[in-house]
Amino acid sequence: MTDRDTVALHAETHIIDALQYPNCEDRVRLEEWRAGGLDCVHVTIAYHERLGEAIGNITAWHRLFRRHSDLICHARTAADIRAAKRASKTAVVFGFQNPSPIEDDIGLVQVFHELGVRVMQLTYNNQSLLGCGCYEAEDSGITRMGKRVIAEMNRLGMLIDMSHSAERTTLEAIDLSERPIAITHANPAYWHPALRNKSDHVLEALAGRGGMLGFSLYPLHLKDHGACTLDSFCDMVARTADRMGVDRIGIGSDLCKGWGYEVLEWMRRGRWTFAPDFGEDESATPAWPDPPDWFRSAADMPDLTAALLSRGFAPDDVKGIMGENWLRFWDDAFRPMGDA
Amino acid sequence: MTDRDTVALHAETHIIDALQYPNCEDRVRLEEWRAGGLDCVHVTIAYHERLGEAIGNITAWHRLFRRHSDLICHARTAADIRAAKRASKTAVVFGFQNPSPIEDDIGLVQVFHELGVRVMQLTYNNQSLLGCGCYEAEDSGITRMGKRVIAEMNRLGMLIDMSHSAERTTLEAIDLSERPIAITHANPAYWHPALRNKSDHVLEALAGRGGMLGFSLYPLHLKDHGACTLDSFCDMVARTADRMGVDRIGIGSDLCKGWGYEVLEWMRRGRWTFAPDFGEDESATPAWPDPPDWFRSAADMPDLTAALLSRGFAPDDVKGIMGENWLRFWDDAFRPMGDA
Repeated sequence: MTDRDTVALHAETHIIDALQYPNCEDRVRLEEWRAGGLDCVHVTIAYHERLGEAIGNITAWHRLFRRHSDLICHARTAADIRAAKRASKTAVVFGFQNPSPIEDDIGLVQVFHELGVRVMQLTYNNQSLLGCGCYEAEDSGITRMGKRVIAEMNRLGMLIDMSHSAERTTLEAIDLSERPIAITHANPAYWHPALRNKSDHVLEALAGRGGMLGFSLYPLHLKDHGACTLDSFCDMVARTADRMGVDRIGIGSDLCKGWGYEVLEWMRRGRWTFAPDFGEDESATPAWPDPPDWFRSAADMPDLTAALLSRGFAPDDVKGIMGENWLRFWDDAFRPMGDA
Repeated sequence: MTDRDTVALHAETHIIDALQYPNCEDRVRLEEWRAGGLDCVHVTIAYHERLGEAIGNITAWHRLFRRHSDLICHARTAADIRAAKRASKTAVVFGFQNPSPIEDDIGLVQVFHELGVRVMQLTYNNQSLLGCGCYEAEDSGITRMGKRVIAEMNRLGMLIDMSHSAERTTLEAIDLSERPIAITHANPAYWHPALRNKSDHVLEALAGRGGMLGFSLYPLHLKDHGACTLDSFCDMVARTADRMGVDRIGIGSDLCKGWGYEVLEWMRRGRWTFAPDFGEDESATPAWPDPPDWFRSAADMPDLTAALLSRGFAPDDVKGIMGENWLRFWDDAFRPMGDA
């Protein structure tokens, strides 16, 4: 394909990033989204926040939607994402990386669904009330409350995300959920054996039940971290497509742009410890890890499209990976159970 | 009209009660609604509750909607009320009698709107952050925050209710609001000069701007309280129709069924005082006031229809007063500004 064809393919595709935690108080973030041709971003609006704090984050997003109504809008459905693309705006889907905002109250799942939350992780690294995170020593699987919350999320059309969950808990969620689930931002462990990356067993079970994987570009999830090459990344995408199916994969960059180190501390430490916690960053450096030079912001998204085309993926498969797979998946996943 | 004609008129009308605070944990309440032919009730879901407490009340209602899905459903629009009637269910509209749930955060107006809150009083008897209540000694009108909240409610399609507000504050709200407002549950002071009832000046201003009055059946708002006769009530309705227009009036019974005295204490005292407070109940009796014998529960609603017909109102006017006026008014009032 010519460069012009590549640009045209990127432009006509619904480009979707299935996970970012961006500081959008700076309009530069939104300009990066537009520069990257991003039609939709699933943004994290809570890690360790309680009910009232999570609602405060929602009101902050409402303010952003008003202030930057030329660039972004709130999406509650896949149809909203299509409408955003037609209006040349980036659709924002709300998600939680941890169930903290629902506290111990299953009734809050519906409350947050009504406020537009469409994705929730059952755990974030640690044990939660619902299941076990990927950094715990013991993984006892989905809890009693977790089973009920899975059913409630299924009913409402809130997507279950197991990106930060431990192996057994993830497999049980895949099995217990009546609807396909997602791992929005992680990579295969066969490529890079981070605790956050996923075993072949998990990826097979996920795809076997119609689920989706979003490839992470967070340095700690990449082979050779920030030194990872784009070729290596594309090879991994190709191998994973062979295993899971090319329609079961997408991008979930895990970009966390615009934050100081204190926000990484919040993500890692929340309020559950007084001690420093570096997750699986063995360098124990109090800094954000360096990104690969080929993916420094959302504005680099078109380079992924070009690289996948160069790697030999068929144009329709590239469109799928860059967003159309997520869009089709969310068409179903965000629909309340029983709705046509 | 024959009795049969009266029954048929009641059945074909969208019967709406624009204010109740019912204890619906007892299914008897919902059976009374059905027995009374009520197609819609605007229920109070908060008096002095803060954000988290008000959300707890919403989750409690969600549980009721599941448990009693044969009798009730949640209404967010006038169209939902019409659909409820077709399904032989009573539509429930959420409202606040006080702005406590939004605390000091205007962003929470949209949050609660998204959760289905369609009516909010700017004050409940006392001074609030938005304006002055009807029991305060001095009425300084709508506050700075009040002006902004009025504009936000106008934008979203959340109806401003001034039932418990003081005179100047009420007149200012009528004037400041770009959209018609309501007094969902009060009576004219010319008939019974309670602090909670409204002056001719307020009623004229309200109707002049396209607003609505809901007649209260709460004993303290009735002439002779519980000894009030149905004839006297109907005479008052007729005189008010002459002054305001027969399309600007409806019912807002203020029924508070199924609660012990501690709930009346909560309504009156909230957390703002340690001392007993009896509002304007001069008897200072720690008990709910006795209702008139012709309106003891929502099951008596058909008797109002019959009495208004007997009083000489035209059938179409009775239909308007018993609910069609509210339905038409809410068609507009619950629509976001700018929506067709």
